[in-house]
Amino acid sequence: MSYGYNPQYGGQAPPGHHAGGFAPPPQQQGPPPGSDPQLWQWFQAVDTDRSNHISANELQQALVNGDWSPFDLDTVKLLMTIFDTDRSGTVTFNEFSGLWRYIKDWQNVFRHFDKDKSGSIDGHELANALGQFGFNLSPQALQLVERKYATAPTGGYGPPPGITFDRFVRCCVVIKQLTESFQRLDTQHSGWVQLNYDQFMQTVLAAP
Amino acid sequence: MSYGYNPQYGGQAPPGHHAGGFAPPPQQQGPPPGSDPQLWQWFQAVDTDRSNHISANELQQALVNGDWSPFDLDTVKLLMTIFDTDRSGTVTFNEFSGLWRYIKDWQNVFRHFDKDKSGSIDGHELANALGQFGFNLSPQALQLVERKYATAPTGGYGPPPGITFDRFVRCCVVIKQLTESFQRLDTQHSGWVQLNYDQFMQTVLAAP
Repeated sequence: MSYGYNPQYGGQAPPGHHAGGFAPPPQQQGPPPGSDPQLWQWFQAVDTDRSNHISANELQQALVNGDWSPFDLDTVKLLMTIFDTDRSGTVTFNEFSGLWRYIKDWQNVFRHFDKDKSGSIDGHELANALGQFGFNLSPQALQLVERKYATAPTGGYGPPPGITFDRFVRCCVVIKQLTESFQRLDTQHSGWVQLNYDQFMQTVLAAP
Repeated sequence: MSYGYNPQYGGQAPPGHHAGGFAPPPQQQGPPPGSDPQLWQWFQAVDTDRSNHISANELQQALVNGDWSPFDLDTVKLLMTIFDTDRSGTVTFNEFSGLWRYIKDWQNVFRHFDKDKSGSIDGHELANALGQFGFNLSPQALQLVERKYATAPTGGYGPPPGITFDRFVRCCVVIKQLTESFQRLDTQHSGWVQLNYDQFMQTVLAAP
């Protein structure tokens, strides 16, 4: 188990599981004055058309999971939505520094909860992570999360396959957002919400 | 605009937009007695490891959208969950015939609602489709659907990009399931549901 570099970019490490994140940049170039040289280097590597703006497509090309599978489009859209603060549809170098930090932080979270270092989060690891984040999900809800974010469908026997890095990030963000939406709707703090069809659909559809 | 074959399999048609679906099989082989020869041919083409069972991974490799983008893993899992009737985690030849028919039917639906033949469903086409399916969504809810299933994030100006075939299928299945869940929970037919946190989370997380 290693957190190696993508072999296609120089072969510093053998293929294996890492948490997931950016494949390393293929070359070095000088940074603009005052900026972090390493961050500029990564930005340039992701900005393949050299437009100084990163599109969703460029971001999806640059991001890989620990098993080298690509990030889901929905995770890429989630990242773009968080960090495209000027709502341009693309990510600038300034916005990119936040995105970079966010992924680094999630890598550390993922490694922390991937106790068996398998490169994916299984049911027990998921329950542990969501519990430590303060979400009080029932065993039935946890099983639904495990199935929804697993990388393959669950057969009739045995546990579902694990959750890769990008789907783990999305899973946590979705559960956080749904929980916060519920709390906002529960104005009486009674533990219950009353919703009409439109409120219900809007609450659900607003989550990534 | 054509509904052509994938050029990598023989080049019968130039690249262009089609609704999306299976890339055609690379070769012909004899079908087992009594089965549809064409269906058997497609099944064999998808079953690349010749195991007589189609895995989620094999299915994802075989399915492409009209713009040749791959199907999202979540759509592939959705299809597997519907048609893996014996819950084996894979799709057999018998199960495959249902899956094949399902995709063919959705291709016709997609083509019908893609009025401008752009190869993707825009906001107006989406509102028309969901309205004709009998879903009574508010303009705000429709806008959330349009953004959630678009193939890229929405910038501050202009409409979001369109919805490709596989995401359109998932979108319709999700809205159908959420609507039916709401109706089941609305036991008094009052148009309102009362939910605690666990009921809310389970209802949302059960949707694809």
